[in-house]
Amino acid sequence: MIIVMKHGAGKEELAEVKKRIRELGYKTHVIHGETRNVLGAIGDERGKSVLQSLESLPGVESVVPILKPYKLASREVKLEPSIIDLGNGVSIGGEKLVVMAGPCAVESEDQILETAYAVKASGATVLRGGAFKPRTSPYSFQGMEEEGLKLLALAREATGLPVITEVVNPRDVELVARYADILQVGARNVQNFALLKMLGRLDKPILLKRGMATTIQEFLMSAEYILAEGNQRVILCERGIRTFETATRNTLDLSAVPVLKEQTHLPVVIDPSHATGHARLVPSMSYAAVAAGCDGLIIEVHPCPEKATSDGPQSLRPEAFASMMEKVRAFAAVAGKTI
Amino acid sequence: MIIVMKHGAGKEELAEVKKRIRELGYKTHVIHGETRNVLGAIGDERGKSVLQSLESLPGVESVVPILKPYKLASREVKLEPSIIDLGNGVSIGGEKLVVMAGPCAVESEDQILETAYAVKASGATVLRGGAFKPRTSPYSFQGMEEEGLKLLALAREATGLPVITEVVNPRDVELVARYADILQVGARNVQNFALLKMLGRLDKPILLKRGMATTIQEFLMSAEYILAEGNQRVILCERGIRTFETATRNTLDLSAVPVLKEQTHLPVVIDPSHATGHARLVPSMSYAAVAAGCDGLIIEVHPCPEKATSDGPQSLRPEAFASMMEKVRAFAAVAGKTI
Amino acid sequence: MIIVMKHGAGKEELAEVKKRIRELGYKTHVIHGETRNVLGAIGDERGKSVLQSLESLPGVESVVPILKPYKLASREVKLEPSIIDLGNGVSIGGEKLVVMAGPCAVESEDQILETAYAVKASGATVLRGGAFKPRTSPYSFQGMEEEGLKLLALAREATGLPVITEVVNPRDVELVARYADILQVGARNVQNFALLKMLGRLDKPILLKRGMATTIQEFLMSAEYILAEGNQRVILCERGIRTFETATRNTLDLSAVPVLKEQTHLPVVIDPSHATGHARLVPSMSYAAVAAGCDGLIIEVHPCPEKATSDGPQSLRPEAFASMMEKVRAFAAVAGKTI
Amino acid sequence: MIIVMKHGAGKEELAEVKKRIRELGYKTHVIHGETRNVLGAIGDERGKSVLQSLESLPGVESVVPILKPYKLASREVKLEPSIIDLGNGVSIGGEKLVVMAGPCAVESEDQILETAYAVKASGATVLRGGAFKPRTSPYSFQGMEEEGLKLLALAREATGLPVITEVVNPRDVELVARYADILQVGARNVQNFALLKMLGRLDKPILLKRGMATTIQEFLMSAEYILAEGNQRVILCERGIRTFETATRNTLDLSAVPVLKEQTHLPVVIDPSHATGHARLVPSMSYAAVAAGCDGLIIEVHPCPEKATSDGPQSLRPEAFASMMEKVRAFAAVAGKTI
Repeated sequence: MIIVMKHGAGKEELAEVKKRIRELGYKTHVIHGETRNVLGAIGDERGKSVLQSLESLPGVESVVPILKPYKLASREVKLEPSIIDLGNGVSIGGEKLVVMAGPCAVESEDQILETAYAVKASGATVLRGGAFKPRTSPYSFQGMEEEGLKLLALAREATGLPVITEVVNPRDVELVARYADILQVGARNVQNFALLKMLGRLDKPILLKRGMATTIQEFLMSAEYILAEGNQRVILCERGIRTFETATRNTLDLSAVPVLKEQTHLPVVIDPSHATGHARLVPSMSYAAVAAGCDGLIIEVHPCPEKATSDGPQSLRPEAFASMMEKVRAFAAVAGKTI
Repeated sequence: MIIVMKHGAGKEELAEVKKRIRELGYKTHVIHGETRNVLGAIGDERGKSVLQSLESLPGVESVVPILKPYKLASREVKLEPSIIDLGNGVSIGGEKLVVMAGPCAVESEDQILETAYAVKASGATVLRGGAFKPRTSPYSFQGMEEEGLKLLALAREATGLPVITEVVNPRDVELVARYADILQVGARNVQNFALLKMLGRLDKPILLKRGMATTIQEFLMSAEYILAEGNQRVILCERGIRTFETATRNTLDLSAVPVLKEQTHLPVVIDPSHATGHARLVPSMSYAAVAAGCDGLIIEVHPCPEKATSDGPQSLRPEAFASMMEKVRAFAAVAGKTI
Repeated sequence: MIIVMKHGAGKEELAEVKKRIRELGYKTHVIHGETRNVLGAIGDERGKSVLQSLESLPGVESVVPILKPYKLASREVKLEPSIIDLGNGVSIGGEKLVVMAGPCAVESEDQILETAYAVKASGATVLRGGAFKPRTSPYSFQGMEEEGLKLLALAREATGLPVITEVVNPRDVELVARYADILQVGARNVQNFALLKMLGRLDKPILLKRGMATTIQEFLMSAEYILAEGNQRVILCERGIRTFETATRNTLDLSAVPVLKEQTHLPVVIDPSHATGHARLVPSMSYAAVAAGCDGLIIEVHPCPEKATSDGPQSLRPEAFASMMEKVRAFAAVAGKTI
Repeated sequence: MIIVMKHGAGKEELAEVKKRIRELGYKTHVIHGETRNVLGAIGDERGKSVLQSLESLPGVESVVPILKPYKLASREVKLEPSIIDLGNGVSIGGEKLVVMAGPCAVESEDQILETAYAVKASGATVLRGGAFKPRTSPYSFQGMEEEGLKLLALAREATGLPVITEVVNPRDVELVARYADILQVGARNVQNFALLKMLGRLDKPILLKRGMATTIQEFLMSAEYILAEGNQRVILCERGIRTFETATRNTLDLSAVPVLKEQTHLPVVIDPSHATGHARLVPSMSYAAVAAGCDGLIIEVHPCPEKATSDGPQSLRPEAFASMMEKVRAFAAVAGKTI
C-alpha cells in the first residue's frame, strides 16, 4: 500500500500516519519527494481493508493499493492452469475446448431432449438449461424449478452429457447439486456472497459469471470466496458488461480472456449469447472467443426461438449451431485446441 | 409493442408475424411506411416477455416495447405519493425529510451508542448500521451478525430512533426482521430475486438500493418484485452508478430523483456516502440531493473514521455531520420540507 | 511515479529499471516489500509521459503516477478561486451566481430577441445561442453561421447581456471572437487540441464543456492547453457524461462540482439541459447544481420548443424558466450566492 | 417515427400532434391502444430532427425513431461491400486482410525506416506513424509535424508501403494529403465535423476511428459526413470504448465487427493496441479480431518501446510482431482471407 501525503502536509501529520501504519502491523518506509511525501506500508495488505481508512487522517491525499487482493485465485500462488473435471469424462482448462449448449430455460421434456440430442450431434459436450430463472420482471416465467432439474437429469441419462444449471438461492444449493454436474452462478449473483460461500463448501464445479458492472479484480475476489471455503473447481465466465452501446445487449469484453489468463489459473469460458443478445451475432463472437484463447463456450440453442419463454432473440436454431460448430472446430485447431 | 419489419420483407413474412402476434392474444395493426412496415401489437404487454422472441421470425428487424413493464410501482396505478410509516413515529414520503445516519458496520456497544446519540442530537431520525456486511473480499470483516443486531436494538431503546440494517441472505430475513424497523437490500442484491420475494411477504418497510449497473426501469422492476408479493412499503435509494470516472467511488445520478418522482409513487432516498466514497464530498451532495427533491438521506457517520472496519474514507465525523445538518435544514426549507 | 516490479523479478531487472529512471533525470528510491519491490521515481513527472513507457521493461508489473499531471489549472499553483470578467459588468467565480440562458440555435431575429428579453427579465445575465452547430447528422440544421453571430450581437445591443456562442473550427475563432463575449467549446471538441491552442492565444473568456467520456483529470488537462498558451480565463462546464442509463440523455455528474472546486481555481458551470435532455427535469437539476456549489448555470430556453430546429425537448419555455428562476434565487441564497 | 401519447392524453392533444406532424410533411396513422394511443409519422424522417421536438407538445410521452438516420453508409443503399484502393496496389474490403503497422509517433529517420522494413518483412502492407499527435497533456511530445510527414514519405519510397497518418486540424488537411496515402481521423475527432467535411472533399481514403463514447449509430453518422461530401473511400476503425474496467486502457468492442458488417458496406479495421493499452494483450486480440471477420488490423510496433515518446506500453517489438503475424495468417485462412 502506498500512502500519498498532501502537498504541504507537515511533520506531525506524517508522524501520525507512520504511527498508525505500524499499529496495524506494517513496516513503514518514507520517500521524500519534491512536492510531497509518499509512504510505503510494507507487509501483506490483503484482507486488511482497514488500511484504506487511513485516507481519513489529516494530511493524507490518497491511499493506493499495490498488491492484488486475491490469493488462491492468483497465478502467484498456483502457476499451472487448473484442469477441472466436469463429470462424465469431460474436463475443462486443458487442450479440449468445451462447448456447453442448450436452451435458456427448460420448458418441456420434448424441448430439452430434442435440444440435447442436437447439440451433442454437433459437438457440444455439456448441456445447459435453466430451471430457476432470475428474471427482471416478476411477471415473467420463473422456471420449472425441480421439475426442470429432473428433465435435465433425464436428458443427461439419454445423451451422456453432463448438465450445467443455475442456482439463485442458497436454500436450493443442495437440491440443485443433487441433479446438476456443474452449478452456475448468474451475473446478477456474482456478489451474492451468501450463495458463494455455500457453493464453496460443495464438491461440484461452479461456473461463475461476471456481473454486468464487475471489474476483473472484483470478479476474481468473488471466485476467491468460493476457493476460500475449500472448493477449488471454479470456472470463470465472461458474458458481456454493461456500457453505453445499445446495438448489442451487453458489450462482450474479450480482452478479459488474456487478462484473466495472466492473473489466474482458473479456466475461462465465454458466453456470446447473453453478451450480444442476438443470435445472428453469436457465431462471429464464438470464433473470436476461441481465437482469443478461451477454454470453452456456453451457447443458447433452442429448437424454436420464436416460441422461447425467455431469451428467444439470442438463441440459435440447432442447424445454425451445427454450422457454427464446423468453423469453431477450425478456429480451435489454430488456437491449439480440439473439441 | 411495436414490431419493425426489415426493409424488403415480403407479404408472407408479414402475415406470419401477424398470425403469431394474434396467437399470443394481441390485436395487430399494420402501418405501411415508405421503406418498411411497422406492426403494433395491441394489448397489455407487461409480463409477456415472449413477444420479444418475435425478433427471431424471418423479416423482423426489431421489437420495440412501448409500455413501462411495471404496474404496482407506477404512477399510473397509484397517483398520490406513498407515505411510509417507519416505526417510532417516523414516516417518509411526506413533508418531513428523513435523515438516516450511523456507521457502515456495527463494531461495538460504545461505537453504536456514541454514534446514535450524536446523530440524533444533530437531527437524524433513523439509525443505520450494518450487522451482515457484503464485502468484496472474503478476508474482510463480515459483520457482527446477530450480536450486531442486538446492539442496534439496544441503541434504539436508548435513543428512540428506529433502526435500518441490511439483510443479504433469504435465510436471515426473519432474524433481521425481529430486530430491525427497516430492512435494507444492498446494491449487490438489487436483482437477488429470491431475497426480494421473501421481503415482499414481510410486514416491515424495505429500503431497496439501486445496483451499480441497474437502469431506472430495472430498479422499478426489482421494487415490483416486493410489491407484487404484497409488501407495499418500499423505499427506493439511489447510491451512485458505475461509470468510467474514478475521482469518485461511483457517480451519483441525482437526475434519478425527478425521473423516479415522475414514474413512481414510492419515496426516494439518496446515499451520498457510497456514491462519492469520500467524506469531504458528502455535504455538497447531500445539499444537492435535498434541492433535487429527495425524501431522505442515508449518511455514514463514524466516531473515528480512520479506525473504521469498513468504509472509513466516506464516513463523516459526528461534528462534521452536525454542521452539515444545519445547512441541510436550510436547503430543505427552500425545498418545502422540514426535518 | 511509482514503479511496481513483478513478483520474482531479479536484481538485474531492478538495476536496469533504476538505470533507466536515472537517465530520464529522476532520483530513484527502492522499497523492498515482502513479495515484490517498488521503486519511487523522484522528480517532477508532469509532462514526461515517457516514464509510462518503462512498463515495457522486463520485470516491471505496472507504473503508477502519483502527481496530478496539470499545473496551471491546479489549486497547488493558485490557491484562491479565479474570478473571471465576462464583459458588460458580469463576472463569474465570485459571489454572484451567473445564469446563461437562451436557445440552442439562433433561428431568427424575432426568436433571439424575444428570448433575450425574456431571460433577462427573469434574471439571466448572459445570453446563449448557437450559430455554428455541431450536429450528429450531416442532414440536420448546421446553424446560421455569421448571420447568427450578427443576430447575437444585435440582441446584446438591445438587452445589454454579454453573449456566449460556440466555435467548432480553429479557422472561425477570429470571426466568432469578433462577435462573442465568451467562446464556448462543446463537449465533442473537449480534446480538439488544435482548437484549444488557438483559444489559448485569445483575449476572451472560454467556456470549456466536459466531453461525454472525459474524466475530470482529462478535463483539467484540456483546460491546461488553453491556460498554457496564456489565456487564464477558462470556465469549466459539466454537461452530463455518457453512461448505460437511458432515462436521461446523459448522466449529470454533480459530484464534479466539489471535486473540481478542490482541485482547481477555475469557476464551474452546470448545463442541466444537455445533461438531462428533457425540459421537465431541468428545474430540479438546476436547484441541485446550485446547492452543490456551482458558480453558474447554462440553460436552454426557447419561445416555442416544439418548433425548435434543435434540442426542442430539453428547452424550457420562457414562463417555465421564469418560475424556475424564483426558486434558483432561494437556493442560491442558502448557498451563499446572489443572482 | 413513433409518437407515444401519455396515458390519459385527450382528443385535443392528439389532434394537435397530428396537425403538427402533417405540417412537417408526414402522413399520420393512429393506433388506439388499451391504455394509450400511439401515432406513426410516415415519411422519410432522416435529417428531420425537428420531429424529436414534438416531445415538447402537451400529451406526448416520448418520440421513438424507427429508421436508421444514415443513408449513404447503409447496406440498404449499397448492398455489396466497398473495396477501397489504398494506393501502391493495396486494397481493403475484399479477400485480403490488410495489416497496418508502425510506431505511434514518427521520431527519427532511423526509427521509422527500421520499423518500416521490419513490419513489411512480417507481412504488413501499410505503414502507420503519427506526425501530428493529439496528446492529453500540452506538455507531452506533440509530433514532428511536416518533418514527420517527410520521413513517412521517405519510408514509403524505401519500402513501397503506402502510409497512413493522422490529421487533427482542418487547416492541415491539404498538407497531410500531400504526403499520406490514407488520412486518419483519431478517436477524439470522430465528431469534429469541420474536419470531417474537409476530408469529404478530398480524393484520398479516410480511416475514421470510433470515439471512446461513440455509439455505432453515431459512428456511422460521422462516416456519413464524409460520404455526403462526396468521398466514398471511408474505412471504419474500432479501437476500444470507455467503460468502468481499468485492467485494459479501453474495452475492445469486437461485436462492432458483425454489427457494422450488417449495417454498412464500409470496411472495418480493428486497433488492438489502443484498445488494450498493453503490448502483451495485442496478439490475442488481433487473432480474435480476424476471427470476428474484420478487414484489417492497425498495430503499434516500435523498435524500442521503453524509449518511445508515446504509447510505449502498447507497442510490440518487431520480433513479437513477426511471431504474431504467423498466427494471424493462420486465423485469417480459416476466416477466408489471405494476407
